[in-house]
Amino acid sequence: MNKQQLFENIKRKKSFLCVGLDTDIKKIPEHLLKEEDPIFAFNKAIIDATAPYCIAYKPNLAFYESMGVKGWIAFEKTVQYIKTNYPNQFIIADAKRGDIGNTSAMYARTFFEELDIDAVTVAPYMGEDSVTPFLTYKGKWVILLALTSNKGSHDFQLTTDESGERLFEKVLRKSQEWADDECMMYVVGATQGRMFEDIRKIAPDHFLLVPGIGAQGGSLEEVCQYGMTRECGLIVNSSRAIIYADKGETFAKTAGEEALKVQRQMEEQLKAIL
Amino acid sequence: MNKQQLFENIKRKKSFLCVGLDTDIKKIPEHLLKEEDPIFAFNKAIIDATAPYCIAYKPNLAFYESMGVKGWIAFEKTVQYIKTNYPNQFIIADAKRGDIGNTSAMYARTFFEELDIDAVTVAPYMGEDSVTPFLTYKGKWVILLALTSNKGSHDFQLTTDESGERLFEKVLRKSQEWADDECMMYVVGATQGRMFEDIRKIAPDHFLLVPGIGAQGGSLEEVCQYGMTRECGLIVNSSRAIIYADKGETFAKTAGEEALKVQRQMEEQLKAIL
Repeated sequence: MNKQQLFENIKRKKSFLCVGLDTDIKKIPEHLLKEEDPIFAFNKAIIDATAPYCIAYKPNLAFYESMGVKGWIAFEKTVQYIKTNYPNQFIIADAKRGDIGNTSAMYARTFFEELDIDAVTVAPYMGEDSVTPFLTYKGKWVILLALTSNKGSHDFQLTTDESGERLFEKVLRKSQEWADDECMMYVVGATQGRMFEDIRKIAPDHFLLVPGIGAQGGSLEEVCQYGMTRECGLIVNSSRAIIYADKGETFAKTAGEEALKVQRQMEEQLKAIL
Repeated sequence: MNKQQLFENIKRKKSFLCVGLDTDIKKIPEHLLKEEDPIFAFNKAIIDATAPYCIAYKPNLAFYESMGVKGWIAFEKTVQYIKTNYPNQFIIADAKRGDIGNTSAMYARTFFEELDIDAVTVAPYMGEDSVTPFLTYKGKWVILLALTSNKGSHDFQLTTDESGERLFEKVLRKSQEWADDECMMYVVGATQGRMFEDIRKIAPDHFLLVPGIGAQGGSLEEVCQYGMTRECGLIVNSSRAIIYADKGETFAKTAGEEALKVQRQMEEQLKAIL
């Protein structure tokens, strides 16, 4: 999916919501545990209920890997289910990978060739040759960690170098030597508030993947105020606040309602540009 | 396995070699492709041939993930095979993970609870709460990326901050507030040469996991000269130069011979401290 198509989907759905499929066997409704594949059963129901209100899904690999082989099967089935039934949804593998060149190339093969996923999150610490193998697939995206939503983001990402540039700013600037805004996005946490202003000085047109709304406490209004571009430029993720809003038999219906609530807030924010 | 036990193994084997199980279906001998699980068949033969000469194995997850479910099965079987047949071998999941707290906790559960692996490599970019969930398991290790072996390591890891400290130095220093040398090691590439002197100023007693010998061109002598401690303090990894030394039917025998060559060089280096 290219940038233009992504924006078309946002305009059509009046939403830039990404639903995070952080599916934890310990947190899904009990009645699903009797299913053959409870994780997939949960995801399928959540996807069917939320698809009208979002433009992207983001399974976090950690949750699937924690279940070993069974988890990988559920992950692959989930990706396949979205691709078959909702082909306009942008699929992000939240994997935060990054390794030496030949190894990053293996990860890229997994996500882009084997699974045909649209985007993968990548950690920048190892530099250029750990990122570029992900950039050789046409129509696929790298979403590079820049300024994350967690408390630990302050430990290294805000370190200021001799020239006054903070590490996340260097990541934003340097990575633009490797790829443009047609195949790279950045992770910027919703908890970072006015830092979006600084981000937009360096990356005015890039899409940003924004976690941290909901359970982590970030504000959608603030993100939009400081981060939105003429082409939206934002994919805002919510995981726990949507998928675990209700732990009973009505979990999917409630998840749909929560997604709808967020979509309506987003529709309001989109009025500024549409 | 604790630090003392690791050193005991090094003294007993006169080796601090880690064999990297970067097993790629496209690179293993052709005759194995008719096996039911070619990846596991390859690993099993490599492990049996090299176990006398090494003290650790390091499967890189990328290579297994690239094969999806089949890859995960091969990975789990490999870990189980080492644990059952060579219980003194230190097993490192080279995963370079790191995510927000609750997600890192899921990764930790995978590697330490489900698979009972000894150590996992972790990327530091997201800071303290992305690392600490891995530190709650007694006898288990975090191996934090500090100064990696690839060219891209120069992009961010060598960035000097206002106080004159380079990013990898900050990672070494800051992370010692979270854990000591009984449960944390660092990745330092063999290609970094005299940088080991600088590393030892900040982390004088920590074990270092050293990739980059062999195919990547690092020098064992230089690593030992500048990086070895009284308790060795080094686990030196070799992957491609050992496991793909021979692509014919004698691949395992040749891998054993290559591992023996490295072990002999290590025995020589260990004379300085034993």
